[in-house]
Amino acid sequence: MEPTGELVVVRLGHRPGRDDRMTTHVGLTGRALGADRFVLIGDHDAPLERIDDVTRRFGGPYETERRDTFGQFVRGWTGDLLHLTMYGIPIQKRVDEVRAARDDLAIIVGAGKVSFDIYEAADWNVAVTNQPHSEVASLAVCLREIGGPASLAPSFAGGTHRVRPRELGKCLERIEREDEG
Amino acid sequence: MEPTGELVVVRLGHRPGRDDRMTTHVGLTGRALGADRFVLIGDHDAPLERIDDVTRRFGGPYETERRDTFGQFVRGWTGDLLHLTMYGIPIQKRVDEVRAARDDLAIIVGAGKVSFDIYEAADWNVAVTNQPHSEVASLAVCLREIGGPASLAPSFAGGTHRVRPRELGKCLERIEREDEG
Repeated sequence: MEPTGELVVVRLGHRPGRDDRMTTHVGLTGRALGADRFVLIGDHDAPLERIDDVTRRFGGPYETERRDTFGQFVRGWTGDLLHLTMYGIPIQKRVDEVRAARDDLAIIVGAGKVSFDIYEAADWNVAVTNQPHSEVASLAVCLREIGGPASLAPSFAGGTHRVRPRELGKCLERIEREDEG
Repeated sequence: MEPTGELVVVRLGHRPGRDDRMTTHVGLTGRALGADRFVLIGDHDAPLERIDDVTRRFGGPYETERRDTFGQFVRGWTGDLLHLTMYGIPIQKRVDEVRAARDDLAIIVGAGKVSFDIYEAADWNVAVTNQPHSEVASLAVCLREIGGPASLAPSFAGGTHRVRPRELGKCLERIEREDEG
């Protein structure tokens, strides 16, 4: 059974400058592995511009937005909340439950220390290995576990370019559209 | 069948300062998801110190080392080479072959532009989605695909601390050893 609800990645605790690349990678990982939307909590837009640029070039849909606080996001959210933390229950013990429950799902990815409120707000506090590593790696594995093998073969519409897979070398193809002719 | 050879993550093209966090995340992702060793190509040690500190605290074995050039690494390497690139063949089309072939395996993770020599040296140029996202995400998914579900339940020896998974909150336990008594 494929999940059908909206899948949103929420980035918490972004520190401008220091976290720009990591937050951009979180957002792009969401896009590549099956999320529908990226929400950055904070007052800084730079990572969103870079993500939107990738969506313009390589296709969508993938929405990005900024909210000043997590509260602003969660007050309008009626779906489930999954918080990724190295202290949580191993994802392989919860993935069936998450998939079965799933309507709309927000995956919360923190940077640095995360407030205890987030642990309490979450329906699941889930870990990828209970080891210290990377929020980008955790998100990638989480999306792959939830989405199954289909998460590795995403499809996008629109955009101006696409990669043609090659055994050797690089092939980046410009997409010609009939309405351009 | 579980792979049995050595699994090495090789980080290429590290730019000191700019890439420190990303390289640290690459190294820690390797440790968490089943690699045995991390090799940083370049002349900068800072990320290795951070990775070694995690291994001291959370256990190993996980070796780290630095080589000045990729050539220095590859001249001593007799195993297979898998290069992660968004331009490669989708990983789901090569993972069975990689697992079947596998003795020792080095996974090459680039930063920025990667020399064509690397594409030629690799036994496989493999992509995680053919979309632009993150070398950390690509490595995480690659290790999970190659290692299978067991990659999500790694075991470590030694170290001074371990996480006790919790539905809510954080539990970081100090490991007491009999020889300390």
